[in-house]
Amino acid sequence: MNQQLYSSKLLENVVNEFSKLPGIGQKTALRMALHLLKQETASVQQFGESIIRLRNEVVYCKRCMNLSDTDVCEICANPRRDPSLICVVESIRDVMAIENTMQYNGVYHVLGGIISPMDGVGPADLTVDALEKRVKEGDVAEVILALSTTMEGDTTNFYIARKLKDAAVKISTLARGVSIGDELEYADQITLGRSIIHRQPFEMGE
Amino acid sequence: MNQQLYSSKLLENVVNEFSKLPGIGQKTALRMALHLLKQETASVQQFGESIIRLRNEVVYCKRCMNLSDTDVCEICANPRRDPSLICVVESIRDVMAIENTMQYNGVYHVLGGIISPMDGVGPADLTVDALEKRVKEGDVAEVILALSTTMEGDTTNFYIARKLKDAAVKISTLARGVSIGDELEYADQITLGRSIIHRQPFEMGE
Repeated sequence: MNQQLYSSKLLENVVNEFSKLPGIGQKTALRMALHLLKQETASVQQFGESIIRLRNEVVYCKRCMNLSDTDVCEICANPRRDPSLICVVESIRDVMAIENTMQYNGVYHVLGGIISPMDGVGPADLTVDALEKRVKEGDVAEVILALSTTMEGDTTNFYIARKLKDAAVKISTLARGVSIGDELEYADQITLGRSIIHRQPFEMGE
Repeated sequence: MNQQLYSSKLLENVVNEFSKLPGIGQKTALRMALHLLKQETASVQQFGESIIRLRNEVVYCKRCMNLSDTDVCEICANPRRDPSLICVVESIRDVMAIENTMQYNGVYHVLGGIISPMDGVGPADLTVDALEKRVKEGDVAEVILALSTTMEGDTTNFYIARKLKDAAVKISTLARGVSIGDELEYADQITLGRSIIHRQPFEMGE
């Protein structure tokens, strides 16, 4: 699309700002800007302010490096969570995915990425040192490595496991296997192979 | 998706605000919010402020009802545009579409919608009275009706034409026909039929 001609510089600015967001083109950005113009002044004010506040006020939890409004995040500060069980994840999205399962009662450690020489991400860019310190100084019983099953994830798992090998801590990883609801014939060979090797005792149900 | 659990209220607010935008779900909203967190504080500040300023400061051009930063928009204020030629459009998007063609040198009149009883939009919700006043008081030679070719568009065209019938003004409408680049066999019957009725003299080129 050629250079759009806007009758309003204010509108043009907002469209340009929206187009910088991932996956948003000029047309969608314009639709968003025109949508905002139809909303109440107060609610648009709130929208703009919430964005500015997020960037200015959000911090990383000093324990788990998760995004937080306070020094220590709600999960770390929750007395009903088990602080001796640490789940290591790549990003805050993974924290949310695991929290949504309602199956995990421990705390987290957010690495902020995985080791990926192709993208120029080395161990020093991640929060591995903080994890090591946390494990060695705290009362940690188990570290669950919950990274992607990619070469980068495996490399990072290996790096972390080596860093922690002197600490008296159990290191585990997520169970891999055929997804619930999947048909066998469509599962990939590696997943299917692993799910045979790591087969589990059959449970008769309750 | 169930209720997401955010570790930060600030983040949750921004995600909720983004999800109110048309076509944006929770996951995309989260992606946008996390994207903003990676940007410079100053540029996020500017983003938030541009949204607030748009809603507070943008006005309708008092002549053509287009969005504008000033009382009279840039198009109406441009001395090189022909103020005796008014193109009537539904919305600011249509102004932008026509401006992009670089083929139009007149001014506009933005109706703010079309007559649509199904959506509860009547003539009183549009800026038809302002158009009538503009035509009757000003030095207008021609009004081009550039609305959608739908029943609502036709109704609105008819309503406007009747309102303007006492004014000594030429009323025209956009040429309809087979699109440039289209193959005849795929053109719909009505468009093809009209393009035969309104056939034009063949031009040998320059």
